[in-house]
Formats: sequence, structure tokens, C-alpha cells
Amino acid sequence: MATITIVGAGMMGTALCWPLRDNGHTVRLVGTFLDGDIINSLHATGFHPTLQRQVPEGVQPYFENQIGDALGDTDLIVVGVNSLGVDWFTMKVGPFLKPGSKLIAVTKGLEDLPNGDLQIIPEGIMRRLPVGLQGHVSINAIGGPCIAHELAARRHTGVVFCGQNSAVLQELRQLFTTSYYHIWISTDVVGVEVCAALKNAYAMGVALAVGMMDQSGLDGLAAMYNPQAALFAQSCFEIRHMLQITGGGVDNIAWLPAPGDLYVTVFGGRTLRLGRLLGQGFSFDEAHSQLAGVTLESVEIITRIGRALKRLEARGIVQNDEFPLIKHLDNVIHNGVKVNIPWEAFFTR
Amino acid sequence: MATITIVGAGMMGTALCWPLRDNGHTVRLVGTFLDGDIINSLHATGFHPTLQRQVPEGVQPYFENQIGDALGDTDLIVVGVNSLGVDWFTMKVGPFLKPGSKLIAVTKGLEDLPNGDLQIIPEGIMRRLPVGLQGHVSINAIGGPCIAHELAARRHTGVVFCGQNSAVLQELRQLFTTSYYHIWISTDVVGVEVCAALKNAYAMGVALAVGMMDQSGLDGLAAMYNPQAALFAQSCFEIRHMLQITGGGVDNIAWLPAPGDLYVTVFGGRTLRLGRLLGQGFSFDEAHSQLAGVTLESVEIITRIGRALKRLEARGIVQNDEFPLIKHLDNVIHNGVKVNIPWEAFFTR
Repeated sequence: MATITIVGAGMMGTALCWPLRDNGHTVRLVGTFLDGDIINSLHATGFHPTLQRQVPEGVQPYFENQIGDALGDTDLIVVGVNSLGVDWFTMKVGPFLKPGSKLIAVTKGLEDLPNGDLQIIPEGIMRRLPVGLQGHVSINAIGGPCIAHELAARRHTGVVFCGQNSAVLQELRQLFTTSYYHIWISTDVVGVEVCAALKNAYAMGVALAVGMMDQSGLDGLAAMYNPQAALFAQSCFEIRHMLQITGGGVDNIAWLPAPGDLYVTVFGGRTLRLGRLLGQGFSFDEAHSQLAGVTLESVEIITRIGRALKRLEARGIVQNDEFPLIKHLDNVIHNGVKVNIPWEAFFTR
Repeated sequence: MATITIVGAGMMGTALCWPLRDNGHTVRLVGTFLDGDIINSLHATGFHPTLQRQVPEGVQPYFENQIGDALGDTDLIVVGVNSLGVDWFTMKVGPFLKPGSKLIAVTKGLEDLPNGDLQIIPEGIMRRLPVGLQGHVSINAIGGPCIAHELAARRHTGVVFCGQNSAVLQELRQLFTTSYYHIWISTDVVGVEVCAALKNAYAMGVALAVGMMDQSGLDGLAAMYNPQAALFAQSCFEIRHMLQITGGGVDNIAWLPAPGDLYVTVFGGRTLRLGRLLGQGFSFDEAHSQLAGVTLESVEIITRIGRALKRLEARGIVQNDEFPLIKHLDNVIHNGVKVNIPWEAFFTR
């Protein structure tokens, strides 16, 4: 049995308590500065307010200011913050890391560097650590289709643990595997992480057609799966191309990280709500104001990719006619454009 | 303007009347021996009983025994029968073909040959023609995500026309393209057709989890998108492998033919109903009797692939641990096995 410290008490970080407690591990769950109410609730009743469920018996909640205690003598640190929490995470956790420390991140996202290169979360965390630690801690990550609510309900879930070292990944796999949490491993960290980030962008693309479907039906047929399917296919097409550009393995286009995670995010994710409103004909500002308070990883990743693509085009790495779907999403979000799917630009190279 | 004869007045063949009539072509629609009632209805009122919609103005209906008239002076023949109608089609239409005749098929399926090789529909049609015509007619096909009801409602639809000759494909593309029917072309006939056939098999695989979702919810959460997504991903994984074995391009795994068509078939196809019943715990015999009268391309293709895999394994082309999902579906259909997803067998090579 191991001791595992989850930093970030949001839905995804907390959901990992189920397989970990089912396996008998000691689980410490640390709230960020945003999670005070959650930790209070866990202390009082064990009820997680956003997962809307009792956490498993024995999960130990910690407030942000107790993070030192939570990280003492721990075997593994789970990075449970969202993509905007990476600075906070490294600032708070960095001082407690030692050479040989092991981490695994559920954070999804990419950072666009000033030259337009896109950097994955494990590299972004590593870059922020003190120079003496860089390359001396093991930062792994989890990709693949997993809605937190469903993992907490012990639904069958298939994910990919990625990292540079297969032996470490096998070890991590053993800590987390249960009869319902199925884990495959991959040393293609860039590929898995690029997919994990992009699925939030492209799920919004597919969701546009769900919104268009809401508005249709005047001819007696509301169904709009043909357009959704074409958008899903174009999303796969652009994800594969982004894998090529970033150096990730294109094989990810045929298993859990790309089509699997995109599928689940279209149906289960929060992104659906925004994409649907846009597809119904609302402007981004109108749609955004209807969703006040929801963290939109999708908007963040589309913004970052949109910014990166301009720089990659300037460098000649990407051509102007590539990535038409994500560029349209970027225009909808940042230039006040209404949804108007660029069908004829799809599936070209 | 051209004259186009559609042979087979089922839903998919008939749905093509919309783009063709919108482009002003002469459209002749010929019923098979199963379509007498449909042709009667079209003559009487223009109403198509299974599409539940008036066909476009000017579509000319023909009974089976008028097929000679319908094929006279035609520019293009659409093969609109299902996979069980290929023998009938070649018997009836073959005598009217000439060197240079052009055909395009919406039929989806694969034939398993005695040695286990899988043959695509255009090759199956060619093989049945008189020797003097073999290689002298152009047999093209349509793949990609298209639910007939939605095409008839003029929903945006993206498809792939495949064939051996790019110039012919460009010509066909021009005949059919409208503002809502978006066509890309591919000379990878094997790849596109293998995907078009397999999607019916794998949509049933994903639908199992939809049925499992119907039965869940005892813990307050009915959602079951994690299992659906893992099954969708395993489907993509097996489709890619089948592309490799059949010599189809693996690139199809990243656009309309594979993920696009699988997506639409999960949600819009008739296959969903059977897979869902199986996922709810019914045996195949029980589920099948509830769906009496529905043509199940999915059952047909799973049966053929199951048969082919045994022969391909005997020849050493396929290993025993490959294709675990479709083999499970085959066992459910033919060996009375109840659904029990073989998660641990997924994503191995």
C-alpha cells in the first residue's frame, strides 16, 4: 500500500480517490486556493459538492495551507489542477520535491511559447522547477476518455498513463488498476498529451452541430448527425496533423487518446454547453455570459492554439489553409464571427 | 444535365434523388423485387413510405420488370441495393452494361471468400459480370457518414466518392455536389469500402454500452460515456488493423470513412437498436425477435468477418488475440454468449 497525495480537489483529481481507495492506499486530497468550500464540506460530511457524491471512506482532506503535511512522506503526487493552475502548483509543490519524486498529472492543456511552439503540461511543469530538479523528477500524465462523474460511479473507464519510463508507468498502473479502471501505458508523452488537450477544442467544434440540431426540425426531422459526424471526422483529421507537427505519434489517432477522448468530451463534457449555444446562433459573448462561472478549458486551448498557429504560419511550419475548423472556432471566440462551418475547406492538406 | 438510374428504391438509394434533382438531372428510380409497394406509392402520391417523405418533383419511378427501360440511354447507374442484393443486381443489370458503363454503389459490405480473404463490393460486382466486361466498366462507391433521412432533409453531409480513376470521380462529384452534399474523392477504394462495411459491425459494439447505460443508474448516475468511448476507441483500433490486413490506406482512420461513419452509425443507424438490446442483457435470439423485419447489415458483416477471421488465423495472417471486440460480437450472435466486454484484451497487438 502506498501514500498518494492529490493536489487539487476538483472533479477529476477527486475522482481518482475511488480506484486508489478501492486498492487500499492512503489518499490525501489537498484543496487549492479555490477549493476551500470543498475541503470544508469533506471535513464536515465527506460530501463533494461538484461531484455531488460522498467521497470514499478514509480520504484525508487538507486545506491549501496544510500542503506541507500532505506532501510529507508521500509516494506519489497527483497534479489535479486545471491548465490555469500550473504556476500555482509548481510554486506550492516545487519546494517539497526531491530528486526521484514521482508525479502524475490529470491537467489537460498546451502552452504556446513565444515562438509558437506548443508545450505539453509535463514539460511546462518541469520548466518551472528549480534547475537542480529539472530532469530529476518523474512527471507522468493521464490521457484518454474519462468523465470524472463516471469514474466516481465506478463505470468501466479506459485510460492511458504516459511518461518517459516504462518501469515507472507499470508501477503507477499497479497502484491505480481496478476491475473498472483499465489502464494502458505509453511512452509517447507528447502524442497522448497533445490529444488530451486538443479534444477540448474539437469537442466544441462537434458541439456546434448539436446546437444547429436544436434549431432545426422545421421539416419534421431534427436529427443532425451527418454534420456532427463530418465535424468529428475533420477534428480527427486536424488532430492527426497537429500530432505530426508536434512530433507526437500519429498512432494515437486510432485509440483512446484521440477518437476515444474526443467522443466522451462531445457527450459528457462542459464544452458541449458552449458549443451548443454557439451552434444555436448566439455570439460568443452572448453564450459566454449564459455560462458564467464555468471553467472553459476549451476556450483556453482554442485561444492558445489560435495564437500558436499564427506564429507557426509566419515560420512556414503551418500553411494558411490548414486547421480550418480550429481557426473558425478561434474567430468565433475572438473576432465576433457567428458560426458558419467552412465545409469546403475540410480534408485538404 | 445527365440521366441517372438508381437501382434499388430503399432509403439510401432514394435519398440520392435530392442532390441529383436539385442539380436538375433526369432521375429514374427502379424498385427491386422487394420494393413493389414503394414504387406503387411513388406512382400514386410521390410519398416514400420508409423515408416518410415526398420524393423530389420529377423523380421517375420504375418497377423491377421495367428495368430495361430505366437503363436505356442512361449516363450513370447507382447501385442502391444492400449487401444481400448484389447477386440480384448483377443478374438484372449485367445484361444492359456495355464497355465504358459507369456505376456508383451505396451498398455497404464485404464478402468473405473461401480462403478468408475479404472482398469489397465493387470487386464483388465486377467478379460477377461476364468476362468480356470485367475491367471495362467503371465501378465506383460512396463511403463516409450519411444517414439517408438527413440527406433527404438536406442536412450538411460529407461523403467520399471512391474509384480507380480520378477523372471519373471528378465527373461524378460534379453531378452530385450541392450546397449541402459535400463530396471528397479517393482512389483508395479498398480503404474506403472496408471502413464503410466495418462501421456497421463496430457501431453495434459501441451500442452495447448504450444498452448498459439503460440498465444502470442505480447509483444516481445513468451516464455511461466512458465505456462507450473506450469501445469507440477499440473499434478505431480494430478498423485500422483491418485496413492493414486488407491493403487499405490507414489514413482512412483520420477522416470521414472511419471515425466519421462510425460516429454517425452509432447514433443514427438501425444497428443501435440491436446493440442496445444486447447491452441491456438480452440474448441475441431474444433481441433479434424484438426487431423482426429490420435488415441488419451489422449482423451480416459481423458474421462474415467472424468467418473470415477463423480462416485468416488458420493461415497465420491474423493472430488469435487480435480483433477481440468483433470476435466477442460474433460470439454473442452465433454462440449464445451474453455481452461481457473483454476490456483487458483491448489495445494489444
